[in-house]
Amino acid sequence: MTESDPSTHPDAYHQRLLVPFDYPVLFVHNIFEAANPLLADVLDRRRERRRHRVAVYVDAGLSAARPALMDQIKEYFHSRAEQLELASPPQIVPGGEEAKNGWQVVRDVMWTLGNLHLDRQSFVLAVGGGAMLDMVGFATSLVHRGLRLVRVPSTVLAQNDAGVGVKTGMDEHGQKNFVGTFAPPFAVINDLAMLDSLADRDWIGGCSEAFKVALIKDAAFFDWLYDHANALARRDQAAMEHLVRRTAILHLEHIATAGDPFEMGSARPLDFGHWAGHKLETISRFRVAHGQAVAIGIAIDLVYAMSKGLLSRIELERAMEAMSACGLPLWDACLDERTADGERAVLAGLEEFREHLGGRLTVTLPNGIGQKIEVHEMNSELLAEAVEQLRERSLI
Amino acid sequence: MTESDPSTHPDAYHQRLLVPFDYPVLFVHNIFEAANPLLADVLDRRRERRRHRVAVYVDAGLSAARPALMDQIKEYFHSRAEQLELASPPQIVPGGEEAKNGWQVVRDVMWTLGNLHLDRQSFVLAVGGGAMLDMVGFATSLVHRGLRLVRVPSTVLAQNDAGVGVKTGMDEHGQKNFVGTFAPPFAVINDLAMLDSLADRDWIGGCSEAFKVALIKDAAFFDWLYDHANALARRDQAAMEHLVRRTAILHLEHIATAGDPFEMGSARPLDFGHWAGHKLETISRFRVAHGQAVAIGIAIDLVYAMSKGLLSRIELERAMEAMSACGLPLWDACLDERTADGERAVLAGLEEFREHLGGRLTVTLPNGIGQKIEVHEMNSELLAEAVEQLRERSLI
Repeated sequence: MTESDPSTHPDAYHQRLLVPFDYPVLFVHNIFEAANPLLADVLDRRRERRRHRVAVYVDAGLSAARPALMDQIKEYFHSRAEQLELASPPQIVPGGEEAKNGWQVVRDVMWTLGNLHLDRQSFVLAVGGGAMLDMVGFATSLVHRGLRLVRVPSTVLAQNDAGVGVKTGMDEHGQKNFVGTFAPPFAVINDLAMLDSLADRDWIGGCSEAFKVALIKDAAFFDWLYDHANALARRDQAAMEHLVRRTAILHLEHIATAGDPFEMGSARPLDFGHWAGHKLETISRFRVAHGQAVAIGIAIDLVYAMSKGLLSRIELERAMEAMSACGLPLWDACLDERTADGERAVLAGLEEFREHLGGRLTVTLPNGIGQKIEVHEMNSELLAEAVEQLRERSLI
Repeated sequence: MTESDPSTHPDAYHQRLLVPFDYPVLFVHNIFEAANPLLADVLDRRRERRRHRVAVYVDAGLSAARPALMDQIKEYFHSRAEQLELASPPQIVPGGEEAKNGWQVVRDVMWTLGNLHLDRQSFVLAVGGGAMLDMVGFATSLVHRGLRLVRVPSTVLAQNDAGVGVKTGMDEHGQKNFVGTFAPPFAVINDLAMLDSLADRDWIGGCSEAFKVALIKDAAFFDWLYDHANALARRDQAAMEHLVRRTAILHLEHIATAGDPFEMGSARPLDFGHWAGHKLETISRFRVAHGQAVAIGIAIDLVYAMSKGLLSRIELERAMEAMSACGLPLWDACLDERTADGERAVLAGLEEFREHLGGRLTVTLPNGIGQKIEVHEMNSELLAEAVEQLRERSLI
């Protein structure tokens, strides 16, 4: 092996770039109410003082749950016509994982943005759940190498995790997020009033990301979740607003301080429980939603962590009890699916997870509640036992 | 208009990220010769000391001009099997603007990378001209949100401009680079020995980017170009190597120091002469190649600059004389094409250029040779006269 360093090669120029990004993440209410100046202020946050052109996309699920929303958005823009120009009537696009499946919707969005002659300083306002924000964000990040994206996440999951970060993505080649970009938004506006139209499954599912981040980063927040699990299950709005804010901020701080927001090296995103969670979504053909799948993925890794001596039995039971009281599942029948060679299908998620992030396998586990540790291999027998233990628990 | 600043909103978290990128740009010879350790060293420049997996793409034009290249690449990798693993035999992909036209080739590349199970720390080595590097770079930047790209530009244009920067792109929606990403490479290796297989048109065409950057940034380099125009025209290798190196470094310095490598604000890329150049490529359906189109675009803006008092007649004539001596065209018949309303079709390039960059029109012009000035409007009568003047000169 040679020892010459190409960056000190006599015929080398070493390019070094430091690219700054910044965006506000707001926790507010009723942004499309006529009297609320916030959205217009956010679009003019660079004080450009010009009439901003905006294309608006709304998640089909959200517009079905809030039939008045489309007209409200139109009126908001029309009543502020001096500051804002709606480039076209708001468009409805599919929500949920099907939004992200393949190129058709992404290409439709890109062509529409082109037909509307939006430029790099124009805006795309995306109002909806995590999958729809990923998809519209992906299209927006590609046209002219990136228009300005303002995200208005409308679900718990999108407000506390998927909608506040720097990633976009689309499913392709049979893999979740096989393609995507790192593309920080212009702003994120979490309208907490939108959460009341969520189905129970989505309200509760979003809590799993709170458990994820509390269990590996914030013991006090886990205690809060333990104490408020019943309130969350019975849809207490104040409790949910605290959960969303704390979870979002923990994610934002991690992205900013872990040193590698575009994941080019070995720094890790906050993905405890996700190797199995992603795989469960695929195995179940998205019958198990992301939040529920992550809860089960967390449960697998918690039991595994106890078997490796990283958690006490008491810590494990408190975590399982809190997730369960919240209404999160800790088992799904598709965990029993097996591959041709008799292995549990979910276990293949470990290698797919390694491949997506590249390099060496790195899995984050709790080391006591509120602390994390990274491991580079998982014992497959102990893992199989952990899944078996969850099956037994589910029968009680 | 309200005066509240959303970033100081009591319910705001302000996310700030500073994302570092760095990559070497090397000026070397014969990188695929068996005894040359450089390529293996570059792939291991982060000292990961593992066997690196690499997928290699070669421009069809280059492999036709150098029939031994494909075997040479294969042998290079096989002879270093302890350090390098060729993930599949090198693939040939179309070169030239057709490579970038639509999704077909991009999707083929993405699926191949997926089938080969390349991960974010695996490599794509792209060997070819600017259009092919844009296209392979675009595909590479999307898979798993970005694999590691090593560019080996094989043309003058790619080595001194298109291949050393941070952009990728694809033509779609009838517009050049309608979609693309900002995605800095892992490394750029300019193999200067590859230039001898270029057709004259491509050898000469690449010189236009040198004139572009010299005329607005480096008077001494323009004097050098003036003095060496004949040597460049008769394919003097030493002169070309100096041109490539100086032009590439001026581009790299501009990207690093203009403060906005991802072009999010109003900082400008080095695009003197490009508003008309891009449009001429489209009008001629790419019969006029990029380098030649840029030369004509520069000529239009030079004559315009003189008519605005920014250049003296002597400066204009020296610039036109040098470009002409180099073998660059200063006129093409498609400049005479008119739209339905009788306007010269090329003039519509100004608005398309504004739209691609967004915000206010900004065109860079020379202010004396080696200095630049930014203007926000161009007088359409003076522009039409400038084109007319070029037509008359072409008849002499």
